[in-house]
Amino acid sequence: MARGRRWTYARSGVDRGSVSESLRALLAGTKYRPPATSGRLLDLPGHYAGLVRIGRETLAITTDTVGTKVRLAEELGDWEGVGEDIVQVNVNDLAAVGARPSVLVDCVLCETPNPTAFAAIGRGLGRGLRAGRIALAGGETAVVPEIVKGIDLGGTAVGFFPRGRRPVTGRRVRPGDVVLGLPAAGFHANGFTLVRRLLRERSIDLQRPRPGARLPVGRELLRPGRIYVSASEAVASAASTHGLAHISGGGVRNLVRLRPDVRFELDRWPAPSGIYRWVQELGAIAPEEMYQTFNMGIGFVIVVAPGAVDATRRVLLRARAGRAQVLGRVVRGSGVSLPHLGLEYAGYS
Amino acid sequence: MARGRRWTYARSGVDRGSVSESLRALLAGTKYRPPATSGRLLDLPGHYAGLVRIGRETLAITTDTVGTKVRLAEELGDWEGVGEDIVQVNVNDLAAVGARPSVLVDCVLCETPNPTAFAAIGRGLGRGLRAGRIALAGGETAVVPEIVKGIDLGGTAVGFFPRGRRPVTGRRVRPGDVVLGLPAAGFHANGFTLVRRLLRERSIDLQRPRPGARLPVGRELLRPGRIYVSASEAVASAASTHGLAHISGGGVRNLVRLRPDVRFELDRWPAPSGIYRWVQELGAIAPEEMYQTFNMGIGFVIVVAPGAVDATRRVLLRARAGRAQVLGRVVRGSGVSLPHLGLEYAGYS
Repeated sequence: MARGRRWTYARSGVDRGSVSESLRALLAGTKYRPPATSGRLLDLPGHYAGLVRIGRETLAITTDTVGTKVRLAEELGDWEGVGEDIVQVNVNDLAAVGARPSVLVDCVLCETPNPTAFAAIGRGLGRGLRAGRIALAGGETAVVPEIVKGIDLGGTAVGFFPRGRRPVTGRRVRPGDVVLGLPAAGFHANGFTLVRRLLRERSIDLQRPRPGARLPVGRELLRPGRIYVSASEAVASAASTHGLAHISGGGVRNLVRLRPDVRFELDRWPAPSGIYRWVQELGAIAPEEMYQTFNMGIGFVIVVAPGAVDATRRVLLRARAGRAQVLGRVVRGSGVSLPHLGLEYAGYS
Repeated sequence: MARGRRWTYARSGVDRGSVSESLRALLAGTKYRPPATSGRLLDLPGHYAGLVRIGRETLAITTDTVGTKVRLAEELGDWEGVGEDIVQVNVNDLAAVGARPSVLVDCVLCETPNPTAFAAIGRGLGRGLRAGRIALAGGETAVVPEIVKGIDLGGTAVGFFPRGRRPVTGRRVRPGDVVLGLPAAGFHANGFTLVRRLLRERSIDLQRPRPGARLPVGRELLRPGRIYVSASEAVASAASTHGLAHISGGGVRNLVRLRPDVRFELDRWPAPSGIYRWVQELGAIAPEEMYQTFNMGIGFVIVVAPGAVDATRRVLLRARAGRAQVLGRVVRGSGVSLPHLGLEYAGYS
């Protein structure tokens, strides 16, 4: 897998083989490296962001879309949350290499111009910029009914490493380290093709809350993803922070992106509850599939030296970045296991 | 218009009023500026790229898609050229502010995985990277049949200003300057919604050449756009280079982006010939519309001090960046005029 590249796809109905084959085919032609006078790409295969050294700065760049969550926004005529998600899906990937977000460009493709939807997307985008402490430096907005159904929302974010901070790649993760997690705000922007299929098949009324909840299901699902920039900023410069991970598509498997040659034993990752459990039961989805598709309650992971657990949690609280919980630890081996749930994953994809 | 932001749309059948209203609505919410410790956005409204100062470097960022040219690629099953265009549409916007391209991320959205198309796109992308002297630093590839028809191709490029070079914004353009132009390779990636509608309405056989041409019309139209990075690199550091422009959607009006308070009198911009003339006659399109929709034979413009014309042309030849022709000059006033064709444009959009 190329640096900073990720396949996202509907896990239902898409053949993984042809997906991987297509990606390999695409990347086969793109090995070119420009002369060093154009900057130097740092090798970080399969990671959250591409890193490049330009002059005296190291930059991180990442690109992502909100995916099929926009279809739910359209069904409910509620666009603000997905506007914020344009920022979220991108800055959280910068946060996962410890880069400080600097500028974002958005890409909005639509079938027809829609001032009402656009105003809401703009409001959400603005909220995301604030939470991600990032400036909008331009964008592309195209009316392309021949290419797009409804509205597609995506963007690209660029970050950098302030003086004295180095990229947090996971290279320093080692057996004995402790895995901390910060809560997610629902499904963020992953797994929506599957979720929407279940909602349709089970004829769920989106205007009513699920049992035990107050918000209507539609609004609960459209909640924008949490932005972990203040968390990353709080811990990324510390020598005791060995790895960071954004739990996006791929679920707990994302941890393997940090280091394939250690084992993440997550005996305290939460069991499915709330909206996660509701969706799991709705689709009779196997736990194995749940934990490799959704974030399962944890949106951002911080791997720290064993002696730094308390200090890290305090720093996060002081930065108003949330209450980190201990999820487990790093041991010898490979892959990810959730022994209390009987789950075991070998690799990332 | 926001920095580095552009609306692209089918000029046929899309209401410009609601398009502008949507864009204004989107941007209304996005005025947030992060603290200076996150980098400093430079004000350059309506220009080709966003500029940001990060630490000791100034970066340029731009994002664009290939647009509806991909539909023609699909009809002909010929994807290599539009793969190259992913790079072209982005690096030419960097070239237009004098930034040296460094890294690109691509965004490929598709309805179904298609290894054959993807391999061709990858080959084209690789050719574009080489011509644009830029590295692929990641990307997003998503199978999203609920959002996309066929394949959508886009990307984001980041460039920088090597030691001693400042952004070329057009601020230094003044009356007396000479406007030089470099040839385009056909329509590049603009105006394809209109072109394709004409091809359909006139039942044009894409496998046959138009009168006077050797290549089949389909292949002629799918030629990738020319990449002007070597041209920009050759002239951007010279004090006599006052402005650069990428002639993309908006045609000759693009020059107004450099400076709204001078007048570009382009009495030697080529009259329609070749594929341009053929399309114009096919659709009985008014010259005014042709020159504000297509590049009309000139893909990149260099505005230089009057004494620097010969030296600039020599430098471009030495850099193998092509033979620049004199298109006209800068005078007092505003807008763009092509007096030999009776054309007059007030502003950019």
